[in-house]
Amino acid sequence: VAGKPFRIALAGLGTVGVGVVKALHQNAGLIAARAGRPVEIAAVSARNKKKKRGVDLSGCTWVTDAKALAEIPGLDAVVELIGGAEGPAHDLVKASLKNGIPVVTANKALLAHHGYRLAKLAEDKGAALKYEAAVAGGIPVIKSLREGFAANNIKAVYGILNGTCNYILTEMRETGRDFADVLNDAQAKGYAEADPSFDIDGVDAAHKLCILSALAFGVRPDFKSLKISGIRHITARDILAAQELGFRIKLLGSARRTDKGIVQSVEPCLVPIASPMGAVEGVYNAVFVEGDFVGTGLSVGRGAGEGPTASAVVADLIDLARGFCVPAFGIPAASLKKGGWTDTGGIVSHFYLHVVVLDRPGVLADIAAIMRDHEVSIEAVLQRGRDPDKPVSVVITSHPAPQGRVEKAVAQIAKLRSVAGRPCLMRIENF
Amino acid sequence: VAGKPFRIALAGLGTVGVGVVKALHQNAGLIAARAGRPVEIAAVSARNKKKKRGVDLSGCTWVTDAKALAEIPGLDAVVELIGGAEGPAHDLVKASLKNGIPVVTANKALLAHHGYRLAKLAEDKGAALKYEAAVAGGIPVIKSLREGFAANNIKAVYGILNGTCNYILTEMRETGRDFADVLNDAQAKGYAEADPSFDIDGVDAAHKLCILSALAFGVRPDFKSLKISGIRHITARDILAAQELGFRIKLLGSARRTDKGIVQSVEPCLVPIASPMGAVEGVYNAVFVEGDFVGTGLSVGRGAGEGPTASAVVADLIDLARGFCVPAFGIPAASLKKGGWTDTGGIVSHFYLHVVVLDRPGVLADIAAIMRDHEVSIEAVLQRGRDPDKPVSVVITSHPAPQGRVEKAVAQIAKLRSVAGRPCLMRIENF
Repeated sequence: VAGKPFRIALAGLGTVGVGVVKALHQNAGLIAARAGRPVEIAAVSARNKKKKRGVDLSGCTWVTDAKALAEIPGLDAVVELIGGAEGPAHDLVKASLKNGIPVVTANKALLAHHGYRLAKLAEDKGAALKYEAAVAGGIPVIKSLREGFAANNIKAVYGILNGTCNYILTEMRETGRDFADVLNDAQAKGYAEADPSFDIDGVDAAHKLCILSALAFGVRPDFKSLKISGIRHITARDILAAQELGFRIKLLGSARRTDKGIVQSVEPCLVPIASPMGAVEGVYNAVFVEGDFVGTGLSVGRGAGEGPTASAVVADLIDLARGFCVPAFGIPAASLKKGGWTDTGGIVSHFYLHVVVLDRPGVLADIAAIMRDHEVSIEAVLQRGRDPDKPVSVVITSHPAPQGRVEKAVAQIAKLRSVAGRPCLMRIENF
Repeated sequence: VAGKPFRIALAGLGTVGVGVVKALHQNAGLIAARAGRPVEIAAVSARNKKKKRGVDLSGCTWVTDAKALAEIPGLDAVVELIGGAEGPAHDLVKASLKNGIPVVTANKALLAHHGYRLAKLAEDKGAALKYEAAVAGGIPVIKSLREGFAANNIKAVYGILNGTCNYILTEMRETGRDFADVLNDAQAKGYAEADPSFDIDGVDAAHKLCILSALAFGVRPDFKSLKISGIRHITARDILAAQELGFRIKLLGSARRTDKGIVQSVEPCLVPIASPMGAVEGVYNAVFVEGDFVGTGLSVGRGAGEGPTASAVVADLIDLARGFCVPAFGIPAASLKKGGWTDTGGIVSHFYLHVVVLDRPGVLADIAAIMRDHEVSIEAVLQRGRDPDKPVSVVITSHPAPQGRVEKAVAQIAKLRSVAGRPCLMRIENF
C-alpha cells in the first residue's frame, strides 16, 4: 500500500496496549489496505521499558513521561491507554489536543468526567477525539450511535455494560452460589479486580452510560446526575426467584427520554429469559438502542479484554488515517445540552420485590396494605415453605406503577417489625 | 446550522423513498447538526407525480426518467431506491457515478450482481458508493464490517437476513401451522409479497450475504458461487422436533473462512433456543460476526420496512455530508480477490435429519446402516408413535461430521423404498 505512514504514539503498555501492538503487527497488511496507508508505531510510553511483553517495539522511541509524547513532531495520533480520570492520562490527552494531535482513548472515566471540556478542546484545535474502546470494545456502539443511527431521534439506550458483573450474575445462576462466594472465585480467576468496587458497585457501567447518553441525546456527559446501584445485595434467592418468574437479573445502564427530561440510571433489573438481552451471559456486554425511525435493536459482544479493546482502538486509528473526523459526541460541543435530567421516580414499570420476613400471621397482609396505600397493585406472590418465627423469603411482582411510588412503599415495608434485612427492589424491563 | 446545504436527488418514492423524505423532514434539525450542514432534497423521480404520499415535495424538481437525475448540476448525492439488478436502477447508478456523483442505494440485487464493477467505477471517478440500507436496514452492519471491525481478520459472518422467512418460521412455531398456511396468511397481512419466491427461496438473503462476504473477506461479490436453499420444505413437524431438541429453525446466510477457501451458503439451520441468535424472532434480522481480535458478536434489529431502511439511507447521506469516503467494500476495488470459494462439503457440524418412513420392520436399521457406511455417527433418534405401514416421522441428529459426507448418506437414504418424500437435512449451528 502506498501512502504516507500514519504515525502514532502509544501511552500505556498493559494488556490493552500490548493488544493494540499485536493487532497492528499481526494484521498490518489488511489494516494498511483498509486505512489506505500503513499504521506505524513511532513512540511508546510505559513505566518499565525492560518488562517482557511478547511484542517487538525495538524501532520505537521510548518516553518515560507519557505527556512528553504530545511533543513528538510529526505524529498523526496519540493513543492513551493509561486509564483514570485524572493524572497522567488526563494530562496527556489535554496536551495532545492542545497541540492539535488527534487522540484515541479507551478511558471511560476520563470521558465521563471531562468529556465535554475535552470535546470542546478537540474541536477548537481541529483534532479528533475518538474513544470506541471506552464502551463495550467488542461492539462498535460509539460508531453506531454517532453515525449508524444518526438519522434518528434516540428514545432510549440500555445496556449490559460491565462484563465482570454479568459474569458474576451468570455464575450465581448456574451454580446457585451466593454473591460473595462467586466474587472470590472471580477474583482468583482474574475476572474481577482485587478491589472490585468499581465494577460491582456500578461505577464502571455508569461511566460508560454517561458516554452513551451524551451521544444518544446530545447532552454533556454528566456523571453526577446518575443514580447508581450495584449488585452486592443480590442473593442466590433473587436469582432463583427471577428464574422461576421467567427472568434473569442483569446490571443495566439505562437512559431514556421522557416528557420530563432524560432519566439515567445503573441498577440491577429483571429481563425476560427468552429475550435477546436475557440470553446475554458471562462476560458479554450488550447495548439496546431505540430510535424513532430505526425502531429497536440490540448488539452483543465482548466488553473488555485484550482483543476486543485493541480491535476498537485500531478501528479508531483506521478512521483517522482515512481522514474521517466527526465531533466527539456527534454534534458540535457548543450544541451539547447541559442537564435536562429527571430522576427515576417517573419510570412506570412492573417491579420485583424480595422481602425476608419472620413468618408470623399478618405479615403479608401488612405488606399488601402498604402497597395498596401507595396504589401499587400486586401481580404475583411467591412464598416457599413455612417455618413459624423463622425468616422466610417473600417475592412479589407488581403491576405497572411509577418507580417513585414503589420505592416509597418499599421504604415503609422495610420498617415493618417482621421484615428482616433490606428489601430488594428491582425494575422488570421488557425487551 | 451554517454550511452549504447537501443537495440530493431521490429516485423512487415507494415505502422506503417516502420514509427517507419523512426522516429528512421530521429530524431536519438533528440531521443538520450531525451532518454539519442541512440535507436538502433538490430533485425526485417517480412514476406518478400525482399520487398522494403524505409528504411535501413541492420545492423539488420532478423528473420522469430516473437516469436524468444524474445530469442535474450541483448535486452532492443521488439516492437510488428503485430496486432491481438491471434496468433503471442500474442505469441511474452507473450514470451518477460516471458523472462523479456519490450514490446511496438500498439495492442488494444490484450490488450482489454488479458490486465489483460499480465499486471500481466509483473509485475511478472519486465518488462514493454507499449501501447501508441494502442489508438489515435496522442494523448498521455495513458500517460495522467496513469500519468498526476493520482491525480484524474476519473468520465468519452469519445472519438471519430475511425478515419474511423469519416471520414465517416464527409463526409456524407459535401456531403449529404448516408452511403454506402461514405463507398465505403473511401474504394477506402484507408481510410477504404476492410472488414470495425471492424471499422464501433464499434469493434475497443470498444477495445480502454476497455483500457481507465481500466486506468481510475482501472478495468480489459473487452471487453465482452461492449455495442457496429456502424454507418451502420446512414442515410443522420439523419446527416441533427442533424445539424438542432445544433448537429453533432459522434461514441462515453464512460465510466462513476455511483452510480450503471461503464457504458461503444460504440454508435453513438449527440454532439453540437459548442463544442470542435463537431468540431473534418475527421480522427481526440478526448478524453474527467473528474476528481474530474482536471475538464474536451479534447484532439484532429490524431488517426492512420504511423506518429502518430510511434510517440507514440517511446515515449514509450524513457520512457523505461530513465528507467521509471509503472504498465501497472497504479496500480498493483492485485489491478485491476473485473467487477463492469452496463448497459446503467440508463444514464439520452436527446435523438434523427428518425422514418420513413407512413403519415397517428394519427401516431404522437400513437408515442407520447407511449412515454408518458413510461414517456418520448417530447422536439421537426421535420417533413418535407407531402405526404399521403408515408414514411415520423419524428425526435423527448426528455427531459432528463433514456436510458432504452427510449429504451423500442422505441421498442414499432418500432412495430407500420405505422412505416417503424428500428427507429434510439441516446443519446445527452452535451460537
